[in-house]
Amino acid sequence: MLKVKGKAQEIYDGIRELPIVSPHGHCEPIWFAENAVFPNPAELLVVPDHYVFRMLFSQGIPLEKLGVGVPEDQRNPREIFSLLAQNWHLFLGTPSQLWMEYVLEQTFQIDVPLNSETSDRLYDIISERLSDEDFRPRALFDAFNIEVLATTDPATNNLSHHQKIANSGWAGRVIPTFRPDDILDPNSPHFETELQKLQKETDTDTGNFSGFLDALRLRRAFFKDMGATATDHATETVQTHWLDNPEALFARITSGKATVAERDMFYGHMLVEMAQMSTEDGLVMQIHGGSRRNTNQRVFEDYGRDKGADIPTSTNWVSGLEPLLNRVGNSEAFHCIVFTLDESTYARELAPMAGHWPCLKIGPPWWFHDSPNGIARYFDNVVETAGYQNLAGFNDDTRAFLSIPARHDLWRRCVALHLAQQIDRGYFGISDAEWLAKDLAVDAAKRAYNL
Amino acid sequence: MLKVKGKAQEIYDGIRELPIVSPHGHCEPIWFAENAVFPNPAELLVVPDHYVFRMLFSQGIPLEKLGVGVPEDQRNPREIFSLLAQNWHLFLGTPSQLWMEYVLEQTFQIDVPLNSETSDRLYDIISERLSDEDFRPRALFDAFNIEVLATTDPATNNLSHHQKIANSGWAGRVIPTFRPDDILDPNSPHFETELQKLQKETDTDTGNFSGFLDALRLRRAFFKDMGATATDHATETVQTHWLDNPEALFARITSGKATVAERDMFYGHMLVEMAQMSTEDGLVMQIHGGSRRNTNQRVFEDYGRDKGADIPTSTNWVSGLEPLLNRVGNSEAFHCIVFTLDESTYARELAPMAGHWPCLKIGPPWWFHDSPNGIARYFDNVVETAGYQNLAGFNDDTRAFLSIPARHDLWRRCVALHLAQQIDRGYFGISDAEWLAKDLAVDAAKRAYNL
Amino acid sequence: MLKVKGKAQEIYDGIRELPIVSPHGHCEPIWFAENAVFPNPAELLVVPDHYVFRMLFSQGIPLEKLGVGVPEDQRNPREIFSLLAQNWHLFLGTPSQLWMEYVLEQTFQIDVPLNSETSDRLYDIISERLSDEDFRPRALFDAFNIEVLATTDPATNNLSHHQKIANSGWAGRVIPTFRPDDILDPNSPHFETELQKLQKETDTDTGNFSGFLDALRLRRAFFKDMGATATDHATETVQTHWLDNPEALFARITSGKATVAERDMFYGHMLVEMAQMSTEDGLVMQIHGGSRRNTNQRVFEDYGRDKGADIPTSTNWVSGLEPLLNRVGNSEAFHCIVFTLDESTYARELAPMAGHWPCLKIGPPWWFHDSPNGIARYFDNVVETAGYQNLAGFNDDTRAFLSIPARHDLWRRCVALHLAQQIDRGYFGISDAEWLAKDLAVDAAKRAYNL
Repeated sequence: MLKVKGKAQEIYDGIRELPIVSPHGHCEPIWFAENAVFPNPAELLVVPDHYVFRMLFSQGIPLEKLGVGVPEDQRNPREIFSLLAQNWHLFLGTPSQLWMEYVLEQTFQIDVPLNSETSDRLYDIISERLSDEDFRPRALFDAFNIEVLATTDPATNNLSHHQKIANSGWAGRVIPTFRPDDILDPNSPHFETELQKLQKETDTDTGNFSGFLDALRLRRAFFKDMGATATDHATETVQTHWLDNPEALFARITSGKATVAERDMFYGHMLVEMAQMSTEDGLVMQIHGGSRRNTNQRVFEDYGRDKGADIPTSTNWVSGLEPLLNRVGNSEAFHCIVFTLDESTYARELAPMAGHWPCLKIGPPWWFHDSPNGIARYFDNVVETAGYQNLAGFNDDTRAFLSIPARHDLWRRCVALHLAQQIDRGYFGISDAEWLAKDLAVDAAKRAYNL
Repeated sequence: MLKVKGKAQEIYDGIRELPIVSPHGHCEPIWFAENAVFPNPAELLVVPDHYVFRMLFSQGIPLEKLGVGVPEDQRNPREIFSLLAQNWHLFLGTPSQLWMEYVLEQTFQIDVPLNSETSDRLYDIISERLSDEDFRPRALFDAFNIEVLATTDPATNNLSHHQKIANSGWAGRVIPTFRPDDILDPNSPHFETELQKLQKETDTDTGNFSGFLDALRLRRAFFKDMGATATDHATETVQTHWLDNPEALFARITSGKATVAERDMFYGHMLVEMAQMSTEDGLVMQIHGGSRRNTNQRVFEDYGRDKGADIPTSTNWVSGLEPLLNRVGNSEAFHCIVFTLDESTYARELAPMAGHWPCLKIGPPWWFHDSPNGIARYFDNVVETAGYQNLAGFNDDTRAFLSIPARHDLWRRCVALHLAQQIDRGYFGISDAEWLAKDLAVDAAKRAYNL
Repeated sequence: MLKVKGKAQEIYDGIRELPIVSPHGHCEPIWFAENAVFPNPAELLVVPDHYVFRMLFSQGIPLEKLGVGVPEDQRNPREIFSLLAQNWHLFLGTPSQLWMEYVLEQTFQIDVPLNSETSDRLYDIISERLSDEDFRPRALFDAFNIEVLATTDPATNNLSHHQKIANSGWAGRVIPTFRPDDILDPNSPHFETELQKLQKETDTDTGNFSGFLDALRLRRAFFKDMGATATDHATETVQTHWLDNPEALFARITSGKATVAERDMFYGHMLVEMAQMSTEDGLVMQIHGGSRRNTNQRVFEDYGRDKGADIPTSTNWVSGLEPLLNRVGNSEAFHCIVFTLDESTYARELAPMAGHWPCLKIGPPWWFHDSPNGIARYFDNVVETAGYQNLAGFNDDTRAFLSIPARHDLWRRCVALHLAQQIDRGYFGISDAEWLAKDLAVDAAKRAYNL
């Protein structure tokens, strides 16, 4: 557990019990729709968490042994959990260590350390807890004091799970997020099937560009009706464009004649179209830029995406966003949150940009940087130029539901440490620090996402 | 106010009262030539300061409300000042906070905080002070204990204000700096008019390349006669070239036939020509690299340049300066100070380069990085490879005259904090620290700029 | 001397006396083969050390005055040493300061500071010590408690010095490292002569690609027989490729018809061939990426390579290594250690990559970053994502034999400071810290290099 002392303890105590606002992440809505029991410790803590299995894989443990790429009924969850326990020392110094310790200690109330000797005992304890009613998804959601949780959903998704949650009478607020990458990026392997799905789902002719835009507007409206307040866009290289004649390029693409570069160009154009639609419907635009996906071809072919081989690359936000910002960046109705994996852009690009453009806010440290040092570097690099009010608070961005309280707790500890340091340096006193702490823990996120 | 304690306090106390040497900045020479009363608090502290109004703009306050783009007689200075006061919390954690607090507390002797309730009161106090003889530019210059202040002036400027200062009998040393960007960069919108102005001002035929060079030499000599010791060059991407036949390209440019890329190439060549002239006349060459100017087109069209939308971009100093350095870098007569906005180049490029080339010194943290963290990162990243003697000391680079003592004071505090940390780590003792502190506060700048 | 206190002292005390494992560096094997007396203080501490003379050069001292480019019998070693002493203040705050102080205090038992007044006295003391039997290379090797020292040797080298050491009966373990840059990179000025040498040395026809590969395999086997456990590869820009038809390109190259770009491409291909051979023979592949060599042409022409003008450039490890990793990166037999000079790649690229690929380990901070801040930044940036077990421990990478204990000592102090901080932050307790300290000081390096 990251230690907080003195003034940092004081600040942390003022925010530790605040509700959790989770405006961006990758939990499965089906968990809350079905409210089924989580199967076992391995399914919960290892198999779906690429933070965890990538580290084990990096030390030579085959993914199959961790249940990845193995049908659920052929996995041996006790052995998978045991591999984690035996190799727990690999995680020393990583945020995964801190998150997992929090989950074991705070959520499962376990007070013995995880290692090869305690593995079976912990497996049994956790298994037993999971069978308890208190450990079903909705009960945990309530126990975690989650005020709102946003999922991330393909643009063509029918949101049936969200509908089921809404119809269930349960008061938990689980909202969708409009994620149209596969339907906007013609280089996606799913582009064609998504296009057909879009046509079917909206009953709109997506064979021409204008119909394509109409169908997207309909889907955005549907998501908004279902509670969405934001869209989300991933892009390896941040590049936006405004094309004079997107109709012609769309035709080339749908007829299969476009080059890879042209399809990239089209995706860049569609990001600007999305920004324009945001000015119409008010959905906040999120851009997650700079992850090169699936860099290990064999792992991708054998196990699919999200298997720990996505690697950040250097990113140019200034030229990349320029076409988009110069088209919609001065609109009062436009709100955009940017997430980077290239920390060299914090002070150089994003803080100056967010310190100018009214539409821009900087998202919290993302992915590999969602850690004590990563968060410290974030504050050190962005605040002096962007201030605090151009930040978007925190989001956990996780598919590991159990780790949500752990991640928010770590953020709050880091916020407290940062603000205590600012007091020590002479920037402001405890009352400003307490206000900023609450803002960074909850309020800034609600404001940034219109929640 | 940034706190200094223990050894840092001791070091700071040894340098806090030293005279201010300001070898690079953007004060207007007319202030000291005319010595007129500063009109009002808003004109002094908000309207001309893009650090201040960009932050307010980023939170949705229109530039017009801050007096930007509004004729002076149509501005309501009390309301402008009030907007700053109401939104003062936006600046928490920024160097603007520290500078403004210094100005209010130290220069105006105000001991109440700035906020919406105190706004009118502070406005009145400041207004009254400004009407005092002690707050005229020359009196402040003397009170600030400024030993020398360099302005930055277009190459074709007649320096009449500097002449007037020289003739006035006032002892203040205000010297010009030769800034020829608009006459060297054919992509500048002012290139053609500047070329005509150059011809007229020097009575030299600038229609051919050799005449163009002669005219530039004459202007440099004139600036030097007027006290200049340096030139200054801004460039978005650091690129220098040595052309075999610049005459031909100059002809293509003046006849309007050159492409954008060719004009860029020409500017890169002219930087090398400037470096060569520096070896002849001894003017120190400053290169400010890596700012992408006017990225918000609408703001640029409506309000002009320097409106808070200049954003840093990543910079390659190694290949960018290679042609220049390999032409003049081994000349004992050449001295060049480089300023970067890309902090990733501190340890990777600039410190190794300055640790080799006799001609190179690293300028202080610039613009967005002229802040406690920015300065700490600078020392942490450059000293281990470049040492202290390859640094150029400090310059405030400001157009906010009132903030000059605040900025030098902040630098001195940061220097003291850094050196106290070096003592704690075991690098050296207090006597070396005291020597280095004085050097970094004053002497290094005088040496680097031949002052 | 970098100070360690409290828990850091405790951790440091546990590792300070451990043997030195030096798996990568540039000591001359002839020193240990001949075991001759080191000639004088200047030859030992100034003339061969580009860390030292580059700093003096950067302040205007000509290289000739430092003995560089001057025949040994025409150098005045006392004057050279005196120039260092007079200018010793230039090194304040640099790791060179710490290393040199360690050498003077610990190795030479000198307790007066180095400056212009003490210069002659220190020169005499050191000279006297050097004439002592205890200061011959083998005696120092033993006194330094070096368990193993790897040299770096051209691929075509006959390793006669290593042979002589092996035959001498002396127990010191000095092993070669296979460094084939000049024979793999057709842009090297030595490529053709190396190719002829390779043919002669292996008695294999290197006129065709298949013979070329065979000859390389023979050389690798020879190095391995002589004790090598690793290869080493330097590359300015990290670029690897897999060519469909390398035979044809090899033919174009040997017939002198290939372009610079094609030759670069060939080098990129050969790096993958080397990786493949590593899977066959088990030699660990080292890649040192991102140094632009000999950027000062005049210095290169007048004095040759390694004269302080090699400057780091920004590096893209993700795309650069992709072809290599996708060809051999999933092989259990492949082990690769990467070294970067672009610190922005620590958290962005290398830590995520090493946290996924089983074959990859991150080498210690290299060259300009082998310093207290550089090491602190390294741990801060890589550990959270890569953990500790994906690091390759330490290597001193020096050609300054005397500085080896100083460099390992500095690393161990920095390790202790880092781990003590981790304890304070709450990551782990003293027993984990002590285990990690030993690992980072010695064991990780032995494991990474199969020593």
